[in-house]
Parts: sequence; C-alpha cells; structure tokens
Amino acid sequence: MIQLALIGVGTGNPDHVTLAGVRALREADLILLPRKGKAKSDLVDLRRLLCRNLLDEAAQSRVVEFDLPHRERRDDYLGAVDDWHAAIAEVWREQMTRHLPRGGRVAMMIWGDPSLYDSSLRITGRLKGLGQDGEASPAVSVVPGITSLQVLTAEHRIPLNVLAEPVQITTGRRLRERGWPDDAASVAVMLDSGGAFQALAPEGLHIWWGAYLGMDKQCLIEGPLAEVGPAIVERRAELRERHGWIMDVYLLARTPLLSRPVE
Amino acid sequence: MIQLALIGVGTGNPDHVTLAGVRALREADLILLPRKGKAKSDLVDLRRLLCRNLLDEAAQSRVVEFDLPHRERRDDYLGAVDDWHAAIAEVWREQMTRHLPRGGRVAMMIWGDPSLYDSSLRITGRLKGLGQDGEASPAVSVVPGITSLQVLTAEHRIPLNVLAEPVQITTGRRLRERGWPDDAASVAVMLDSGGAFQALAPEGLHIWWGAYLGMDKQCLIEGPLAEVGPAIVERRAELRERHGWIMDVYLLARTPLLSRPVE
Repeated sequence: MIQLALIGVGTGNPDHVTLAGVRALREADLILLPRKGKAKSDLVDLRRLLCRNLLDEAAQSRVVEFDLPHRERRDDYLGAVDDWHAAIAEVWREQMTRHLPRGGRVAMMIWGDPSLYDSSLRITGRLKGLGQDGEASPAVSVVPGITSLQVLTAEHRIPLNVLAEPVQITTGRRLRERGWPDDAASVAVMLDSGGAFQALAPEGLHIWWGAYLGMDKQCLIEGPLAEVGPAIVERRAELRERHGWIMDVYLLARTPLLSRPVE
Repeated sequence: MIQLALIGVGTGNPDHVTLAGVRALREADLILLPRKGKAKSDLVDLRRLLCRNLLDEAAQSRVVEFDLPHRERRDDYLGAVDDWHAAIAEVWREQMTRHLPRGGRVAMMIWGDPSLYDSSLRITGRLKGLGQDGEASPAVSVVPGITSLQVLTAEHRIPLNVLAEPVQITTGRRLRERGWPDDAASVAVMLDSGGAFQALAPEGLHIWWGAYLGMDKQCLIEGPLAEVGPAIVERRAELRERHGWIMDVYLLARTPLLSRPVE
C-alpha cells in the first residue's frame, strides 16, 4: 500500500513550511523530487535545500530525483494539459513502483499549496496500477502550505479582500479574455505569462505586484496601475532575462484595501 | 519603537504554524492575547495552548491577556465595524504602551492568515500615539498562516479551483444578496452566519463543508448540495448548540473540481 502525502512547502522560504510539513517530510520513506529542465533548475535547487534544511539525522527519507515530462505547446490548451497530466501520472507510478515495490510512504513537495492552481491532486486521481498486484491506488493526504498570494499580501502588508467584500482569484489568461470580473472589489492574478493587467483600463486601479516571492531575489512593486504598470512590464522582462525564469503574482483593487494607511 | 508582528497561526492545529511563525512568537517580548467573551473561550484556550506548545524555555516572551471590546449590533454594518476597529486600536495602544513603555517586539496571533477576512491590518493602520513621545506608529510585519479554506481543501483532498478557472472567495452575506457570482467556476464562502447556500438553486451544485477545521472537533460533510444541504444546516445548528460557537467554511462548484476521482 502506497501512502502519498502532497506537502505544500510555500514559495521558497524554508521558514514558510509548517510544522506538519516538516513532520510529513521526515516521516516519508521516499521523497520524489521532479526536475523541470535547465531553465527552472533554481526550483529544483530550492527543493534540495528544503530537504537538506528540514530532514534531520533521524529521518530515513530517501530523496529521488526524476525528470518531469514536458507539456506540448499546442492550441488545444486543456487537451494538452490532459495529456501532460497522464504522462506525469505514468512517471510517478513508475517511480513509486520501482522505489517502493512493497509500499510505504512517499512525499512530494508542492510549491505553495496543493489547492491553488496546482495539478498534483488531479494527477494523483489518475494513479492506478500501483503495488505488487498492479491494482492499488495510493492513500492520499494533503498538507496545506503558504501560497505565493499569501506571501504577496504579507510582504506588502495588505489584506487580500476589501472589508466585507469578495475577492476573485483568477489567471492572466482569463483576465485578458474577460476583463475585470463582476462583483469583486479586489482581484488576485496568478499564472500570468506577462502583463495581463494591460488589458484593463488602469484609471482608479491600484496594483501590488511581487516576483520570486519568499526567495532571496524577491522583488515588489506597488502603486497606481497607470503609474507603475509599464515599470512592472519592463522589470518583469529584465528579471526573466537575468534569471532565465520568473514566477510572479499580483493583486488589483479599485477601492482602498485599507481604510487607513498602515504607516 | 514598537515592532508589531501579526502572525497567522492557522485554525487551531498547532502543527499548521509555520517555522517563521514559531520564530516570531519566540522572539517577541510581548504576546497580546485577546479574550472574546465566554462563548468563544475555546479560541482563547487554543491560543494559550499554542503559546505553551511553541514557546521553549529560551523564549522570554511575556503573554498578556486582555478583553476585546464588543461590536455593537446595529443596522449600519460598516459603521459599526469602523467604530469597533477604533475601540480595538485604542485597547491595543493602551496595552502596548503599558507593557512596553520603552518599545520592543509585540506579537499577535491571528487565526488563519492576516490577509483573509481579518481586520488586524486595518486596526494596525489606526495605531498611533505609541511610545514615550506619544507620536510613534508601530513598524508592522506579517507572517502568513494557513487559512481555514486551505484546511478545508486539504481535508477534503480537493483543489480550490476548477482547472484553469477563476475562484471567488466571498461572504455568506454577499452570497445571499447576489447569488452565484459571474465568471467563477467555484465559490468559497466564509463568514456565513448559517446556510447562505440555501439562497442558491441547488441543482448541479456540489458542496464541501467543514466546521472547526484543524481542531479536534472538526466536522466535514460533502456531496451534491440538493442532497446534503439540509443535513449541513441541521448539523451546524446542533454543533453550535453543543459547543456554544461555530466557525465553518465551504466550497461550492458547478463542475467537477477533479477530472478523475482521487480514490
């Protein structure tokens, strides 16, 4: 029997891991660590660092790295994602069967929280054919972790929502296609391939932006969208060029998030 | 100079505190612990438990309890909240000045995360008149914590969002007033005084509900809204009666959150 723990480990700051996350990593027989190609090798290094920092001498966890399949770039986005998830599930299954042929506890470190724009739970749903009889599915548990949105709001010292108002969490793609969602006083944007906020009329909007949140190279910009929007687009391109990859998120609001300034 | 750390401590499970949260508590000179009246004494007990569990012998933090002002029940909701925040800021100011007359580090434990439907940052913005000259404002830092929504999705082993779709986080009050928000495939509801989902036509909706998340008395219900909605309303009333208070959240979705079942 395979017990699979999906552990949210935050965004790169080892201090953002919870005590439950530390325990689950230490109790695992096997920690599977996906490699995502050279451009994102920073992220593999960060996971290695987390293992080194958090596994004490008593921990018997074996860390195994494996190459994650690439997602095809094709017009049919959801279809490409579906095929990609199937390919990842196959690699997971193969790794678990090879390294834990008689079952045991396997842990995977998930950036942020497994609940938010992450596919581990979907991939897990495809995991079958485990174990000696090739029939079992894993017993899954989830350990929540700090998301990049939470680090964004913590570092800017702002709330996510306007007082008593709803907040929409959306993607860059959707913001471009549909504009400002109805009935949301603030909008958090994730998975933006760059500057989707340019699709909005900037007047009266404020933005709080952050890249590489929780990491040493964290970068924050904040201000009226009309003023700082172009600077964010420029800075993002520059940082992506310098580091070879970028992950960024932002929050937009029409009305003040705080009725009084924090400082 | 007062340094104020707002520390997200999760929802009652001490293992959900992050390493950064533990460190900030241990490094504080003063931990202010608000009492919220008899009905919610469980929550004070949980904070006391967190202090006992997380402060080691090296920690010099002094824990001081104080009574939180009550919010007036009046029709003008936002006005009542505004007055209440002003009264709380006054009590905080008074406690900090009394216990740290020459400045120092003060920590407050915030349920969940200070960014989500929490007013600590707004109250902090009103803090003035600190220190010997009666002029200073505190230097504020925020330590993110696991929210009840994250524990809800972790315990149900589901994502918050449908693949590549937006998610709306809203209040029970708003759901009652406006119904299902446009352009959201899933809706997370917080601060519901009870059964706001009854305002929706239940056909085709699925609900994942949780009360006392992360605590020993945690209760989960999940299923098609038409089937389990009435049972949730009944169970909620029963639990509230038994424990004297309740905190619950839920996620609603029209389409499957996972393309394949986890088990």
